[in-house]
Amino acid sequence: MSTGVWLIGARGSVAVTGMIGALAVRAGLAEPTGCVLESPELRSEAVPGIGELVFGGHDISSIPLVKKAAALAEAGILPARLAGVVQDALLEIEQDVRPLPVHDTQAGVAEAIGADLDRFRRRHHLERVVVINVSTTEPAPPPHPAHTDLDALRAALDGPDPVLPPSALAAYAALCAGCPYVDFTPSTGARLPALDALARSQGLPYAGHDGKTGETLVKSVLAPMFALRNLKVRTWSGTNLLGGGDGANLAEPAANAAKCASKQRVLAETLGYVPQGATRIDFLEDLDDFKTAWDLITFEGFLGTRMRMEFTWQGCDSALAAPLLLDLARLTAAAHRAGRTGPLTELAFFFKDPLGQVSHALAEQWQMLRDALAAFDARITRR
Amino acid sequence: MSTGVWLIGARGSVAVTGMIGALAVRAGLAEPTGCVLESPELRSEAVPGIGELVFGGHDISSIPLVKKAAALAEAGILPARLAGVVQDALLEIEQDVRPLPVHDTQAGVAEAIGADLDRFRRRHHLERVVVINVSTTEPAPPPHPAHTDLDALRAALDGPDPVLPPSALAAYAALCAGCPYVDFTPSTGARLPALDALARSQGLPYAGHDGKTGETLVKSVLAPMFALRNLKVRTWSGTNLLGGGDGANLAEPAANAAKCASKQRVLAETLGYVPQGATRIDFLEDLDDFKTAWDLITFEGFLGTRMRMEFTWQGCDSALAAPLLLDLARLTAAAHRAGRTGPLTELAFFFKDPLGQVSHALAEQWQMLRDALAAFDARITRR
Amino acid sequence: MSTGVWLIGARGSVAVTGMIGALAVRAGLAEPTGCVLESPELRSEAVPGIGELVFGGHDISSIPLVKKAAALAEAGILPARLAGVVQDALLEIEQDVRPLPVHDTQAGVAEAIGADLDRFRRRHHLERVVVINVSTTEPAPPPHPAHTDLDALRAALDGPDPVLPPSALAAYAALCAGCPYVDFTPSTGARLPALDALARSQGLPYAGHDGKTGETLVKSVLAPMFALRNLKVRTWSGTNLLGGGDGANLAEPAANAAKCASKQRVLAETLGYVPQGATRIDFLEDLDDFKTAWDLITFEGFLGTRMRMEFTWQGCDSALAAPLLLDLARLTAAAHRAGRTGPLTELAFFFKDPLGQVSHALAEQWQMLRDALAAFDARITRR
Amino acid sequence: MSTGVWLIGARGSVAVTGMIGALAVRAGLAEPTGCVLESPELRSEAVPGIGELVFGGHDISSIPLVKKAAALAEAGILPARLAGVVQDALLEIEQDVRPLPVHDTQAGVAEAIGADLDRFRRRHHLERVVVINVSTTEPAPPPHPAHTDLDALRAALDGPDPVLPPSALAAYAALCAGCPYVDFTPSTGARLPALDALARSQGLPYAGHDGKTGETLVKSVLAPMFALRNLKVRTWSGTNLLGGGDGANLAEPAANAAKCASKQRVLAETLGYVPQGATRIDFLEDLDDFKTAWDLITFEGFLGTRMRMEFTWQGCDSALAAPLLLDLARLTAAAHRAGRTGPLTELAFFFKDPLGQVSHALAEQWQMLRDALAAFDARITRR
Ligand SMILES: NC(=O)c1ccc[n+]([C@@H]2O[C@H](COP(=O)([O-])OP(=O)(O)OC[C@H]3O[C@@H](n4cnc5c(N)ncnc54)[C@H](O)[C@@H]3O)[C@@H](O)[C@H]2O)c1
Ligand SMILES: NC(=O)c1ccc[n+]([C@@H]2O[C@H](COP(=O)([O-])OP(=O)(O)OC[C@H]3O[C@@H](n4cnc5c(N)ncnc54)[C@H](O)[C@@H]3O)[C@@H](O)[C@H]2O)c1
Ligand SMILES: NC(=O)c1ccc[n+]([C@@H]2O[C@H](COP(=O)([O-])OP(=O)(O)OC[C@H]3O[C@@H](n4cnc5c(N)ncnc54)[C@H](O)[C@@H]3O)[C@@H](O)[C@H]2O)c1
Ligand SMILES: NC(=O)c1ccc[n+]([C@@H]2O[C@H](COP(=O)([O-])OP(=O)(O)OC[C@H]3O[C@@H](n4cnc5c(N)ncnc54)[C@H](O)[C@@H]3O)[C@@H](O)[C@H]2O)c1
Ligand code: NA
Ligand code: NA
Repeated sequence: MSTGVWLIGARGSVAVTGMIGALAVRAGLAEPTGCVLESPELRSEAVPGIGELVFGGHDISSIPLVKKAAALAEAGILPARLAGVVQDALLEIEQDVRPLPVHDTQAGVAEAIGADLDRFRRRHHLERVVVINVSTTEPAPPPHPAHTDLDALRAALDGPDPVLPPSALAAYAALCAGCPYVDFTPSTGARLPALDALARSQGLPYAGHDGKTGETLVKSVLAPMFALRNLKVRTWSGTNLLGGGDGANLAEPAANAAKCASKQRVLAETLGYVPQGATRIDFLEDLDDFKTAWDLITFEGFLGTRMRMEFTWQGCDSALAAPLLLDLARLTAAAHRAGRTGPLTELAFFFKDPLGQVSHALAEQWQMLRDALAAFDARITRR
Repeated sequence: MSTGVWLIGARGSVAVTGMIGALAVRAGLAEPTGCVLESPELRSEAVPGIGELVFGGHDISSIPLVKKAAALAEAGILPARLAGVVQDALLEIEQDVRPLPVHDTQAGVAEAIGADLDRFRRRHHLERVVVINVSTTEPAPPPHPAHTDLDALRAALDGPDPVLPPSALAAYAALCAGCPYVDFTPSTGARLPALDALARSQGLPYAGHDGKTGETLVKSVLAPMFALRNLKVRTWSGTNLLGGGDGANLAEPAANAAKCASKQRVLAETLGYVPQGATRIDFLEDLDDFKTAWDLITFEGFLGTRMRMEFTWQGCDSALAAPLLLDLARLTAAAHRAGRTGPLTELAFFFKDPLGQVSHALAEQWQMLRDALAAFDARITRR
Repeated sequence: MSTGVWLIGARGSVAVTGMIGALAVRAGLAEPTGCVLESPELRSEAVPGIGELVFGGHDISSIPLVKKAAALAEAGILPARLAGVVQDALLEIEQDVRPLPVHDTQAGVAEAIGADLDRFRRRHHLERVVVINVSTTEPAPPPHPAHTDLDALRAALDGPDPVLPPSALAAYAALCAGCPYVDFTPSTGARLPALDALARSQGLPYAGHDGKTGETLVKSVLAPMFALRNLKVRTWSGTNLLGGGDGANLAEPAANAAKCASKQRVLAETLGYVPQGATRIDFLEDLDDFKTAWDLITFEGFLGTRMRMEFTWQGCDSALAAPLLLDLARLTAAAHRAGRTGPLTELAFFFKDPLGQVSHALAEQWQMLRDALAAFDARITRR
Repeated sequence: MSTGVWLIGARGSVAVTGMIGALAVRAGLAEPTGCVLESPELRSEAVPGIGELVFGGHDISSIPLVKKAAALAEAGILPARLAGVVQDALLEIEQDVRPLPVHDTQAGVAEAIGADLDRFRRRHHLERVVVINVSTTEPAPPPHPAHTDLDALRAALDGPDPVLPPSALAAYAALCAGCPYVDFTPSTGARLPALDALARSQGLPYAGHDGKTGETLVKSVLAPMFALRNLKVRTWSGTNLLGGGDGANLAEPAANAAKCASKQRVLAETLGYVPQGATRIDFLEDLDDFKTAWDLITFEGFLGTRMRMEFTWQGCDSALAAPLLLDLARLTAAAHRAGRTGPLTELAFFFKDPLGQVSHALAEQWQMLRDALAAFDARITRR
């Protein structure tokens, strides 16, 4: 049951850490720590094994995977030893990482992406290919009438002006090519009515948005704690200091705003009101991938007594994101196999800004996930 | 449906904050912030209203409630204004707070306690009286053969030597007098086979142990977060600095050990392994009731990457505990009304060291609570 | 030796806390905690006693001092009891707090300010009046040729267009009226060549800028620690969350930028290089005057080993600033009495952004202060 | 001017990091970051260069230096690259690291130590040899009459019973052999009247105690900050979590108590009073050399307002200690060269528990150090 994983942004930190991790787990050189699907309660027939994943992808950078791996090792994200051991396997994956196609029209780009996906599928005799966006976060695109209507979109893509941001174009191309699409970033992805229609008409599932790896993960358990205890959160302020390629990009005001909004959503939806305070992202190059977040929460208890809590989270972003990337590839493959179509709201556990009107409390999201896996298993067995 | 709440330790901080809070909420002077049962999802027919609670109790101290209230206001635990407004109502409760009875034998003490409970019930025409221990934490008692056999216990209590620690004697007296018993402290309470047998034979429920108000509350959401994400917690170390009467007592090595063990239990049971590190309690008189806890958690992610999280919790212990006291009184009354007997394992949400083999994850405990309320409602309606 | 203290912004938090504190200390109701001049090593003949200070000032707000005092007590900045006790004395000060004069030309405003200062001096038979700016922080003014030349400035002030920001106009008026001037804010104040010339020609001292009360105070001891130990600071990032009137104003981008720059200056000047990272100020209304700052410092030791330190500072801004206000009034009076003219660089101990090329290390600043007091004493005794 | 550095505990983390660091700096492979004497303000003629230091020592362990170096690299204390490059030089030092001598009497041990020191000096044509104790912290020894009298001590050492703890015996042997002695640990060392007399009669200097590398370093700048600002520190509580060999040993109650007392001394002596609170050391094996300390400080400002500060220090102990080891070797050599005898109180900058009645404020200690260097230089030039 070999499954292709086609990564948009295949030369980035998350992508390469994911590839190396999968190779290391397959070779028995590493434990699948951080891989949610490896928890005993979530064992499932429907999902492919980590060792069954085959990688390829697009990127606009041309840095060789082996060189990126060395840089990740140098930065302490990977054990240096490991980067060496998997070198040959990375060189093989290198064959399937291609430059992002260019063309006069976006329709042309989409077609070329589709052709690359087809070639990848055939070359490796893959049962299915899941496309996952782990490229640089985009600013939110200006609205366009073609975003809401599939026919209008098809027509517009043939025109000379770009109508979709890169992530949405990748989603379009993937869905046209019969591939499920996952967005690990806060970018647009498949989150447009026209693309939702396309997914449904193609019988394909899609998932997103924005992998939940650090501060927001903590929020998704602390906010429910205050809510379940009926304590009133007065303020919640967050500061995120991060370096790395992602940090540099998020320092851009537009990307920053998109990311911060997705980070505060959990509060409003879990508490039922919006406490004072904001979340900030500041670029601090020297930290590289070792993000540090500090949150201050002030709250009110019985008879108005004021209290406070603060936490500092010092996490390695790629090391937290990469195992989720593998989980999402496997889960989306299972969903596809089970015939699930449209937005995969049941994968909210993985995302800061999940699709659909779903709970933002981590424990509830985990139960949704467990139930979804059971349903996939049931459908597959029935067949 | 007026319900008596008989507090062992009725002149302590938690007890008096609870009384004043109930009076203030009844008078419309305060919101029931921190009262879990006031969350819309937990509304129930079975539980009495906060305004229907009638207070009394035992203590070995003779400080007048009004004076204790003034001290709490001075320490910033209560608004000074409130302590004044409820003065008359406190003076009325004062009528029902009695010195802990003394007698030659523990059987004699138990009988006297029972008599006090009866008088209280009759005086206020109470449907039922819930006895709750909020007195000073005891050291763990030496084992005694009579602890495991009810007949042996009855015989031993008639002897000249004390066989039960004060909390267990209170539980014995309560159960004999037909009252459900709740232990908000880490002390023994009803947690002896002989007392369990007594509760069952009397058709009474009991609950405990050790109200979950601060660091352990946070642990009960963070530990599941690491578990659900399949991240490996390597170390978890906690430091608790607290003043107040409780702090002074917990600085005693025996009480400290009892409390710390109850605080680490959540880790072992949620993670499935015991990370390195310990929890400490240090007395810091000047902090008074405003406990400060600091926890350092180091964990390992994908490919062995080391990460860490720390949090500081600055809570007012009595302000966190008092609304739970009201919740527990109301819930135990409802359980009793619904005919529930034996250990109330479904109240694990409230306790650091819950009865029974139950989940230590807060979200699951909350669902157990919600289901229990629904069951109580169903049984009461059926009648 | 009674000394007038004329406060620009006399109805603000710092001003009113300062007044009440001076009254309370004089009445023996409070200790002079936080008043640097009360340390035994700094006892001096030259400085007036706290009880010898007489208060007045200008403000654009008309909130009565007594009402402001009540608000400060409500916010926990002052003991409620105290606000009551000093009420009569505040009502007396109220007689000397006047609306900021308005006039067609800035020269006219300056003259009216001078007249108010004269009236205050005569009414209370004051030996001298120190003018201190504790009003809202202004944005940095656009440059103007008249700023660098006193004659040009005099001419321009007679014109219809404003040429000085309010703080500099207050400094001009004070100096013209023979009063030393202190700026407790990051605003322009006397920091213009034309005003420096005026001070010198009038034989008057002036001081500033920006009272050092919180995060920067801590920086001024931690940065020297890293420097003395020859450890390399790689990054230093600060987040300041503050409410209150000052917080609201500092949330304005221009004021924010001025304040943040003054906060980072200590790093560059103490370390000799500029580490990565920035300082941020975020408005968080609910915190009111209880500012919370969090700083993350990453540094490098022997053989490149990476280490880190973080601190959280939770201070009450007005309670930290008010005693410094009294210190500065007394010190500047002493400097004036001792015949010291021009910029009081020896008061760097008190300021985030001190005048002159002076050390930013707190310990050295304290020695400068001690030496300056000794010099004042010597000069006064010689006379 | 080659200088011998004889390390008691030569196979420990501090010792080996110090050796490798000196080799790396000499070879131009590393910057002398953390070496205080490399600050431009402290350049001195009197001190030997880092490259002029020659290492040897005693240990009770027999782990080869090269193996220890590999372990330090594995633990992230040294760059792995460096451990490789200096391998040959370490093998050479290995020739001069000997097992701690054993003998029937302590006099015999001392003589054997002296013989080892002589051999080392002659073999490398050293101008002088500084003995530095960096071995495991001992418990405080029971008092003994011979500790206060040199003749009595000499007699007692000939007897069959041990009269000195190992550190004091090493100090005795060093002083007898004409070598200055430095104690980097909290152990007894030369801190006995009889040994002080010996040092003076031999014309030798000695220094100590307990290298100031982490939490206490921070205390030595923060406590003066509160003192200079006349703020009242109410409580100061510290938690130190540390692994490594040193951590394991300090978890022993007796060593722990010795270390903790030396850590709180700075507070009492800087503030002039003892705030509430204690310092704790807890062993947390997994942290290895990367100690984490958390301190909570609560303080009172003007009009009694309560405030607080907390800091977390995450330092690599050996990386902080090793450069100080080099500084101390060089400084003590310079002191000896300059004819300085008795306790080197002027080196308080380096120690948690400095000799003599000296300031505990870091800035003042630094000035003492600078003045001492100038005095050494002056005496050497005069000769
Ligand atoms: N690491 C985490 O914890 C985490 C969590 C949530 C979301 N994310 C998101 O994942 C994404 C990747 O993060 P990263 O740390 O790997 O960043 P990265 O900068 O290391 O990698 C991004 C890669 O995308 C490539 N790229 C840019 N534009 C592209 C395009 N139009 N088409 C194809 N490739 C393109 C870049 O060349 C680069 O190789 C970011 O958007 C980030 O916000 C990361
Ligand atoms: N406040 C919290 O957050 C919290 C959380 C969990 C558990 N607890 C437990 O609740 C209990 C009460 O806490 P508190 O802060 O109110 O303490 P407290 O010291 O203010 O009050 C304890 C009261 O018990 C009384 N007492 C002592 N021995 C007694 C006895 N044998 N019989 C009757 N009364 C007796 C004392 O006189 C005192 O009035 C403690 O055991 C504490 O460990 C408190
Ligand atoms: N509190 C601290 O720790 C601290 C430290 C350093 C600097 N400062 C500075 O001190 C100043 C006062 O702080 P605060 O907390 O008292 O602020 P605040 O807002 O409480 O008071 C400012 C007062 O100034 C008045 N004002 C505004 N413009 C004026 C003008 N043109 N002329 C006269 N009065 C005017 C306002 O009406 C108000 O009464 C601010 O500039 C602040 O940045 C405060
Ligand atoms: N690292 C720091 O930041 C720091 C700061 C202050 C003080 N210190 C002190 O420095 C000392 C060394 O610390 P470390 O981390 O290198 O410890 P370590 O455990 O790595 O090394 C101690 C060495 O001393 C040896 N030893 C034990 N007893 C001995 C004896 N009687 N004679 C000779 N050698 C003996 C051990 O075999 C070991 O090799 C400790 O006492 C520690 O408290 C360290
Ligand atoms: Na903190
Ligand atoms: Na922290």
